[in-house]
Amino acid sequence: MARRNILFIMCDQLRFDYLGCTGHPTIKTPNIDALAARGVTFSNTYCQSPICGPSRMSFYTGRYVSSHGSASNFAPLRIGERNIGHHLNPLGMRTVLVGKTHMIADREGMKRLGVEADSAVGVHHAQAGFETYERDDGVHPDSMVRPDVVYNQYLRSKGYAEDDNPWHWVANAVQTDEGVRSGFFNDCVDLPARVTDEDSETPYMTRRAMEFLAEDDGEKPWLLHLSYIKPHWPYVAPAPYNDMYSAEDVVPAIRSEGELADTNPLMKLFMERVAGKTFGKDTARETVIPVYMGLISQIDDQLGILFEFMGKRGLLDDTMVVFTSDHGDYLGDHWMGDKDYFHNPSVRIPLIVADPSEAADTTRGTVDDSLVEAIDLLPTFIEHQGGEVARNILDGRSLMPRIRGEDIEWRSYSVSEYDYSCQVFRPETGRMPLDCRTYMVATERWKYVHAPGYPPVLFDLENDPDELVDLGLSAEHKGVRQMMADHLADWALRYRQRETWSEEHNVRMTGMEEQLGVLIGYWNEGDAKGKDPGILPKRRPVAGD
Amino acid sequence: MARRNILFIMCDQLRFDYLGCTGHPTIKTPNIDALAARGVTFSNTYCQSPICGPSRMSFYTGRYVSSHGSASNFAPLRIGERNIGHHLNPLGMRTVLVGKTHMIADREGMKRLGVEADSAVGVHHAQAGFETYERDDGVHPDSMVRPDVVYNQYLRSKGYAEDDNPWHWVANAVQTDEGVRSGFFNDCVDLPARVTDEDSETPYMTRRAMEFLAEDDGEKPWLLHLSYIKPHWPYVAPAPYNDMYSAEDVVPAIRSEGELADTNPLMKLFMERVAGKTFGKDTARETVIPVYMGLISQIDDQLGILFEFMGKRGLLDDTMVVFTSDHGDYLGDHWMGDKDYFHNPSVRIPLIVADPSEAADTTRGTVDDSLVEAIDLLPTFIEHQGGEVARNILDGRSLMPRIRGEDIEWRSYSVSEYDYSCQVFRPETGRMPLDCRTYMVATERWKYVHAPGYPPVLFDLENDPDELVDLGLSAEHKGVRQMMADHLADWALRYRQRETWSEEHNVRMTGMEEQLGVLIGYWNEGDAKGKDPGILPKRRPVAGD
Repeated sequence: MARRNILFIMCDQLRFDYLGCTGHPTIKTPNIDALAARGVTFSNTYCQSPICGPSRMSFYTGRYVSSHGSASNFAPLRIGERNIGHHLNPLGMRTVLVGKTHMIADREGMKRLGVEADSAVGVHHAQAGFETYERDDGVHPDSMVRPDVVYNQYLRSKGYAEDDNPWHWVANAVQTDEGVRSGFFNDCVDLPARVTDEDSETPYMTRRAMEFLAEDDGEKPWLLHLSYIKPHWPYVAPAPYNDMYSAEDVVPAIRSEGELADTNPLMKLFMERVAGKTFGKDTARETVIPVYMGLISQIDDQLGILFEFMGKRGLLDDTMVVFTSDHGDYLGDHWMGDKDYFHNPSVRIPLIVADPSEAADTTRGTVDDSLVEAIDLLPTFIEHQGGEVARNILDGRSLMPRIRGEDIEWRSYSVSEYDYSCQVFRPETGRMPLDCRTYMVATERWKYVHAPGYPPVLFDLENDPDELVDLGLSAEHKGVRQMMADHLADWALRYRQRETWSEEHNVRMTGMEEQLGVLIGYWNEGDAKGKDPGILPKRRPVAGD
Repeated sequence: MARRNILFIMCDQLRFDYLGCTGHPTIKTPNIDALAARGVTFSNTYCQSPICGPSRMSFYTGRYVSSHGSASNFAPLRIGERNIGHHLNPLGMRTVLVGKTHMIADREGMKRLGVEADSAVGVHHAQAGFETYERDDGVHPDSMVRPDVVYNQYLRSKGYAEDDNPWHWVANAVQTDEGVRSGFFNDCVDLPARVTDEDSETPYMTRRAMEFLAEDDGEKPWLLHLSYIKPHWPYVAPAPYNDMYSAEDVVPAIRSEGELADTNPLMKLFMERVAGKTFGKDTARETVIPVYMGLISQIDDQLGILFEFMGKRGLLDDTMVVFTSDHGDYLGDHWMGDKDYFHNPSVRIPLIVADPSEAADTTRGTVDDSLVEAIDLLPTFIEHQGGEVARNILDGRSLMPRIRGEDIEWRSYSVSEYDYSCQVFRPETGRMPLDCRTYMVATERWKYVHAPGYPPVLFDLENDPDELVDLGLSAEHKGVRQMMADHLADWALRYRQRETWSEEHNVRMTGMEEQLGVLIGYWNEGDAKGKDPGILPKRRPVAGD
């Protein structure tokens, strides 16, 4: 088989609908649009949790958050979980990282099992199975910036040396008349970053990807995870991207006054966060969204450069390109900012898969609106690489048949989860962390949110595609809510931890005890009628006979 | 603190109601009855799965079967799971095994994490965290008997040397006029075993426990898991236990003709197994049950010897004694044999906890009919040993407050699970292994069985304590079934894999990002009103100023 690579591009906090090809009226993303034209756009894709860490752990394990257990940012992924490397490396594929993973090692588990942090196994675990060509988790507040952030070293080498933490004070800060302001404040992010386009994060990381491609010896197929931090906050863009768009390019907020009345009490806590208050105001939207759009166009420009580089080297012919994001961004829709809750701006993600192989020709340029989930990517990669998708381990399903245009049975609902135990409002809820759980289950028609201790939320996606009317307490929708709750129960009851036996092995074990002579409840030999008599213990002569 | 030990006695396949103290009218178990008189009898205790391996993995991990993932006999317990040793050894307690565990190591997981089979970590995992003073999983059919079964070596050393596998052909076989017959055939198990009482399994294993106690240097408290294989089949007892009881001592079968009409189709498959057909006949019950009872009285006699031995050494004063079983045995009730389904004879287990400490004096000799589960024992041991019960890892709850007579809030339903993928009838169901799941949820009043693809089963434990009338399709019980299904859904949706953060740590992480300077959605400094101003990035002077 010809060498086949995978370029697995992930943005951070990129909404599904902020691309030209997914319908945004003013944004310019010609290179991503061209990618969509040569691949399949999965237009109804949900992330497994609308927050960075848990969502990524689902991408990297192919398992739901409840399955892998890393439900909060910075909660270590337990040592026993199989990661992307465990699945792909045995198929002969390198798994290489340039950018962010948010992976936190399970140091306690490593200690328990005697796995040394600097051993090959320890490093493999700590990096989610990636070779880290360059890792940068992207957000480095002054109090927790690590001395080994390569990008900071780079910035210093380029002369941005006056600050301790140039990621913050150069790449994510702006210069005002009154001094330098952190990009964590949104009031003046329309000003340009204190870094040039060339030295800003997205071009830097794109160059690192190209450096890997240039250095690669071509011996093994690779999966390159190019994982950008942008357009994640701090929403600071270098010139010219900071003023590529203006308030006129901003689409209206998806929100209604009705959402502020009789709001579901848990949803309300999300709305009342600082980000909700900020983005509830048009000033903030008109200041920040143009920059958010600029950061996306910057990514698009960089992808243009990357694709051209790859094309010149012939790499686009044997590389499947995947473009996605870990979650979205409310940007003021539904009176919220940031992400974390389950409206589409937060929980839906863009997903484009462009497979250059002939088998994918029939679907090129099409849109597939099936219910797709982030966990489907790892099985897709495994099948792409010729491996078997282990159903006892992987919760997701390979998209390869869809990409080949095959008519297959598909899931009828999708699930996403969110753990609000780390939210500043948790103490107000009176709930302890293990009870701070929320679940979204969505069919093509309905979206249902279950949170223990709170009333349910229900949206009719057909008649209310903007999710403005919560039917969670509507008497006439009781049956629909029960149907959705049943889906959720079915989902929750599925085996997700029965990992040590494959289905094939389990089939072989059916009836095996009897075949090995463990005869349960046999009265005598007559009970073996129709079975292999070899299973029967032989009547033995009396000793001494 | 004074040295405090735990003697954790487990029988295999012992029904909850085959003890004098739990109401059996003819069986003689004076030593176990005396234990009950000095402890608490938990009369409403369910095992987590009515089959050896999965049930035991729940005892040893403190987690539901769906949590630890070892759902079938011989399915390895995955490497990441914490076992009894992981919980108790750090508290300074030795965990020592004499007898059966049914633990199967996760060799593939060990390889993946570089854990050598003969390393301390590898052995600890493979033995479920026990030091194996002697391990014997109890059932050794000729085709799979291992050469290192110590009991077989013992039997050979005692002159039972004419057979390759004396466990089978001496201890679990009988001599008839026509030759030696395996105890896997029930037609002549009324005959005595070909081994003496002294050399049979239960006394042998009891002596091994006493040898451990005699050798123990007294330095560390211990948990000794004395884990008998009997009264598990082969139902073969040495003289005099084989004819200590007669057909007259056998209580009537709990079954009705009504159960054979319109039987739930999955329940029916369990009934139609060989064991169901055998024990459906009175001949079999009258032949086998007296021997089953004899095996129990033999255990009781041996426990009398053990307790006397311990008493003489002063060990009963600082040893909490726990007596239980991994699951029950239908013995013809409900037209079934063996176990695996969810009627009480199969899923309920005996549980007596006798804590010699003064704090337990108020409950001595009492019966507690709260909903208790097998997974409650490990948390009980942890609290007994002064440790903290980690709610993020352990699904069960400590019984210590109940033993101290404290009035605490308790669970309102219990859950047990069974995976029928290994049953010989699986191919008839047309289902693949991952879909061969059954769940029991029981309140004090109701028992509900859910199995995907099959109608539900419902018993009214108040009006039908013998579980003879299945209300699974009763129109008037629709609401009850929904309530029970809701319990099951709530149970299934609980976090069971979010293991890497304790609740305490998670509470500390609430709002932590903001405290570290990750300001989400702040318009400007004004948004920090009422908060520690230290979280704000300081406005910096312009470079060169």
